[in-house]
Amino acid sequence: MQKTYIRQLFHPKLKEPILIEGLPGFGNVGKIAAQLLIKFTQAKLFTELYSPSLPDYVTINKNGICQAPHYQFYASTKSKPHLIILTGNTQPSIDDPVAHYKICGKIIDFAEQHGCKFIVTMGGVPMPRPAGQVYVAATSPKRAAEIMEKGAAIYGGGKIMGATGLLLGLAKSRGWKGACLLGATTALKADKEAAFSVFKFLMKMLGTDVERGL
Amino acid sequence: MQKTYIRQLFHPKLKEPILIEGLPGFGNVGKIAAQLLIKFTQAKLFTELYSPSLPDYVTINKNGICQAPHYQFYASTKSKPHLIILTGNTQPSIDDPVAHYKICGKIIDFAEQHGCKFIVTMGGVPMPRPAGQVYVAATSPKRAAEIMEKGAAIYGGGKIMGATGLLLGLAKSRGWKGACLLGATTALKADKEAAFSVFKFLMKMLGTDVERGL
Amino acid sequence: MQKTYIRQLFHPKLKEPILIEGLPGFGNVGKIAAQLLIKFTQAKLFTELYSPSLPDYVTINKNGICQAPHYQFYASTKSKPHLIILTGNTQPSIDDPVAHYKICGKIIDFAEQHGCKFIVTMGGVPMPRPAGQVYVAATSPKRAAEIMEKGAAIYGGGKIMGATGLLLGLAKSRGWKGACLLGATTALKADKEAAFSVFKFLMKMLGTDVERGL
Amino acid sequence: MQKTYIRQLFHPKLKEPILIEGLPGFGNVGKIAAQLLIKFTQAKLFTELYSPSLPDYVTINKNGICQAPHYQFYASTKSKPHLIILTGNTQPSIDDPVAHYKICGKIIDFAEQHGCKFIVTMGGVPMPRPAGQVYVAATSPKRAAEIMEKGAAIYGGGKIMGATGLLLGLAKSRGWKGACLLGATTALKADKEAAFSVFKFLMKMLGTDVERGL
Repeated sequence: MQKTYIRQLFHPKLKEPILIEGLPGFGNVGKIAAQLLIKFTQAKLFTELYSPSLPDYVTINKNGICQAPHYQFYASTKSKPHLIILTGNTQPSIDDPVAHYKICGKIIDFAEQHGCKFIVTMGGVPMPRPAGQVYVAATSPKRAAEIMEKGAAIYGGGKIMGATGLLLGLAKSRGWKGACLLGATTALKADKEAAFSVFKFLMKMLGTDVERGL
Repeated sequence: MQKTYIRQLFHPKLKEPILIEGLPGFGNVGKIAAQLLIKFTQAKLFTELYSPSLPDYVTINKNGICQAPHYQFYASTKSKPHLIILTGNTQPSIDDPVAHYKICGKIIDFAEQHGCKFIVTMGGVPMPRPAGQVYVAATSPKRAAEIMEKGAAIYGGGKIMGATGLLLGLAKSRGWKGACLLGATTALKADKEAAFSVFKFLMKMLGTDVERGL
Repeated sequence: MQKTYIRQLFHPKLKEPILIEGLPGFGNVGKIAAQLLIKFTQAKLFTELYSPSLPDYVTINKNGICQAPHYQFYASTKSKPHLIILTGNTQPSIDDPVAHYKICGKIIDFAEQHGCKFIVTMGGVPMPRPAGQVYVAATSPKRAAEIMEKGAAIYGGGKIMGATGLLLGLAKSRGWKGACLLGATTALKADKEAAFSVFKFLMKMLGTDVERGL
Repeated sequence: MQKTYIRQLFHPKLKEPILIEGLPGFGNVGKIAAQLLIKFTQAKLFTELYSPSLPDYVTINKNGICQAPHYQFYASTKSKPHLIILTGNTQPSIDDPVAHYKICGKIIDFAEQHGCKFIVTMGGVPMPRPAGQVYVAATSPKRAAEIMEKGAAIYGGGKIMGATGLLLGLAKSRGWKGACLLGATTALKADKEAAFSVFKFLMKMLGTDVERGL
């Protein structure tokens, strides 16, 4: 396998979907928030992404069934707007920056083919006293202001590592709009509370259409 | 040499062959089991695989003859089912996950061109008291159950590193069926006993056709 | 994103432009000198370069706006000669030599498409007592002598790391002419003085046409 | 620069040339032997090879002239047989095995285009008491025996690192014939004596045609 490989299980009818990302990271905030979203929107797994940049082992579950590392894309067509939710069990090694670029570029390509032009990435940000705060970074001042009005604090003057940051940055360089929501977390364990804060804020941000549309 | 390079020495007539892998690893269980299988089935070397992901030295034998690192494919056409047996003297560095993906992808491609849709990978699993046990992981619950019935224990909840794991995982993602057999070993030295346990179990698993067919 | 990606914002009419490079490094001399040059020549940002070899995070400014790492090309058409000024906020990791080659090769390709055949790279060179000295290395003895006559000291018998060195070396291997100007700096902090020395020397070196042409 | 790049300065008329390699390594034996050979055969520089796998700096000579790292190919047409002599000032990092494969593959390709099917690589092998001994490894038992008869000792049961080993191994996998000559050296400094032993042995090995042909 020389390149990232996409295995599409079925072709959902998506109309201007929003790409929502939640992968493992600080406090697993992004991943847990993505899982909440998948359940809440009854989204269906429609695509798997395999990549030579993911770890080179297989995981075996309790029943002895193997699985190569991969990302999953879920399609939510019952919500308004439609969503493509990206999640997974792993990320490339932090020692391999090129890996993140390759996978993130492929993800943006894939999402564009399905009509995406808007992205929300989700993650955690380590804080000594989290207190349920959600931080935001965005592709434009206007977008940041809109989201701030809904209760998020500006995440200013820092860096966002890995897919959560790079997907947003690459999407912007392609002319997409979008934002990153970071849940404050002590990051000492899987932080369901922080993830729920991010999930709730996302619901508010995407608007009542999503909440009512289900 | 930019890419993995396959040098086919002759073209055996293979009918729905099974790909069997045994490369160096814990206790060299996989490699020794593959060698036993090659001898037992009188399999013939038909292909060499060279790769920029293998170590960048040549080995010199006692007579001063050099050899670049490579994998070997042996064809067994006297057995039922036919087998392609993959072995070698080396693996890519564990620091280079991309290397494993590249080589494993090429191996799956090559085997598919010869009609393979079933794989058995073989390796060792470190245990304080091995006692001849063989562990199994598989591509489906049904397959795992079938193999368990023949005496293997489920290898549940872990990871399988390197080609032994990744070949199985990538094969699954391409729709192949298959299993991994792991011989319990102290892994302190080349463990012929563990390898023989795996070899015997493989014979049993592939069925009496193989045993009688020779 | 598998490869370096160039996003051209507009197409300036450039006539035999000179490529001037100033990226972060010792004392940030090159980058600051490039910024002085951009202001002085009223050069306009016309191209962004994104690359999988740049760091895999996004930076967030004080207002919460994200930006993926990238290089910027500015076009100066009011000066004589015309200039393409390359700058940015980052460089690839020093652990990744291939990254520098990929990006530098792309930059040379891009500049050649706009008619460049001459390059000046700018950087800092750590010295205990800088005293405003500018050092020069060049693609030919004649070029080095010409620049030395204008007051620079020969930077002999050393190495020049990163884009500042490699751009010059690769340009030479393609038949370009050019030079590297290194400002002596303690490199303990952003060294505006050393950068100004390099900037002034560059003005002198490019000739009165530039100075008067503005 | 994404790939290894070959810059051919002129096209010598070569008839079934032998490729002789001598790059930096233990005691610089290979490189010094190559330089002796270039002088002795009055070989002419005809090709430069640049590669993203070589170090990412430029070297500056005493006169301030820059040079990107590269390999040089010299053509000897006054000798019988004709020779292509490969030398250089650097090798890829030992941390980057893929780099060696890429460059060595390109070198074999290039030499094949000029009719090469025979290679001699030269290097040093660290020994506590060198005593002028030359060791040999070869592509076949016959070849090893022939060379041994001329006074070399078999280098058996070891590894040969870097280009000196890999070029020979890759050439063999392409059906070339060839040998590696290793001069015993303490490797504590540039070992001219060991290099001269290798050079003399090479002369003997290539036969009186070379010695008289000049």
